[in-house]
Amino acid sequence: MFITLEGIDGCGKSTQAAFLKEQLQQKKKEPVLWTREPGGWVHGDFVRTLLLEKDLRHELSELFLFVIDRCEHVSQVISPALSCGQIVLCERYTDSTRAYQIWGRGLPEEKVEDLFAWCSFPEPDLTLWIDTPLPVAINRIKTTRGHFDRIESETDGFLNRVCEGYKELSKRFPHRIVRIDGSQPTEEVSAQIWKVVEVHLSK
Amino acid sequence: MFITLEGIDGCGKSTQAAFLKEQLQQKKKEPVLWTREPGGWVHGDFVRTLLLEKDLRHELSELFLFVIDRCEHVSQVISPALSCGQIVLCERYTDSTRAYQIWGRGLPEEKVEDLFAWCSFPEPDLTLWIDTPLPVAINRIKTTRGHFDRIESETDGFLNRVCEGYKELSKRFPHRIVRIDGSQPTEEVSAQIWKVVEVHLSK
Repeated sequence: MFITLEGIDGCGKSTQAAFLKEQLQQKKKEPVLWTREPGGWVHGDFVRTLLLEKDLRHELSELFLFVIDRCEHVSQVISPALSCGQIVLCERYTDSTRAYQIWGRGLPEEKVEDLFAWCSFPEPDLTLWIDTPLPVAINRIKTTRGHFDRIESETDGFLNRVCEGYKELSKRFPHRIVRIDGSQPTEEVSAQIWKVVEVHLSK
Repeated sequence: MFITLEGIDGCGKSTQAAFLKEQLQQKKKEPVLWTREPGGWVHGDFVRTLLLEKDLRHELSELFLFVIDRCEHVSQVISPALSCGQIVLCERYTDSTRAYQIWGRGLPEEKVEDLFAWCSFPEPDLTLWIDTPLPVAINRIKTTRGHFDRIESETDGFLNRVCEGYKELSKRFPHRIVRIDGSQPTEEVSAQIWKVVEVHLSK
């Protein structure tokens, strides 16, 4: 089973992934691999640093870096784990690229989808979209980390378009994307997530 | 004027680029920028290291890394220099990606060309293809550097297909690709190149 966690930075993906991993291991005795994009493979730090810290000028560089990161992440980490029967929990995946590049940056959807199809990225079985209001998410980053990376430093306009993107994506892929109300306290978000995952596991 | 130098590793591109730069500056008093791919921009070392030293598993990773490298190289280095009226000499460019990825790796030509078109890479005015026999080129790398990078370590079959690719490309783009006989001594190769460039400059 391949589960992705999606949503803007500060929405609570890492906290919920940690919770979910523990629940799956303890309550269901399932082997779980918890990973993330960008950067979740052996040389992913090269790509992550380029993406989040460096000055990129060409409008397609960001997209291609996310794609090459995913190519290796899938080949080296995700696909091998799925083949071994592990449950893969991945923070950010194709929907992030869709929301940020198509809605956020305005890249043409058809070309992005063609690229994904060419790469043969596996489709998640379940995507937990943690829908947290932008001001709440920004405030969390400020209080926990204190600094913003290159993409987090984008304007509110950009981040609002990304939020809109996630909303649209949940309509396009209703068979796998489940909206989680991220405005609730952490424990309640966890409870919502566990309910969804339990239903999914019992299918 | 945008001039690219192409050919397999060990064919003499760097030696000839150095010669050509000096000739253009001294004889023609032209401002020249000498650069190369992959890696010819401020953070290009990240990409170059990934490409030439690391283990990549997905069949499209190499292509995407070359493309992202070119996106930034063009945006940050090549286009600004051309806009200032400099002559740009670039070792390896789109024809390298074509020869290595399409002929060498067997990727579909149409998709690679679509990708290039989407990126709006500027077309070189002149491409000097230094056609050096494979055994001569390999011997040069052995005697000058002593070690081979990831792509140079490919089989002779792969490198023979790359050579075939360059030959085919020279037929497809006869208006800009000029074959230089790289089996001659260095000075004679330089003389051939200078003759071609002088004709081109006088156009």
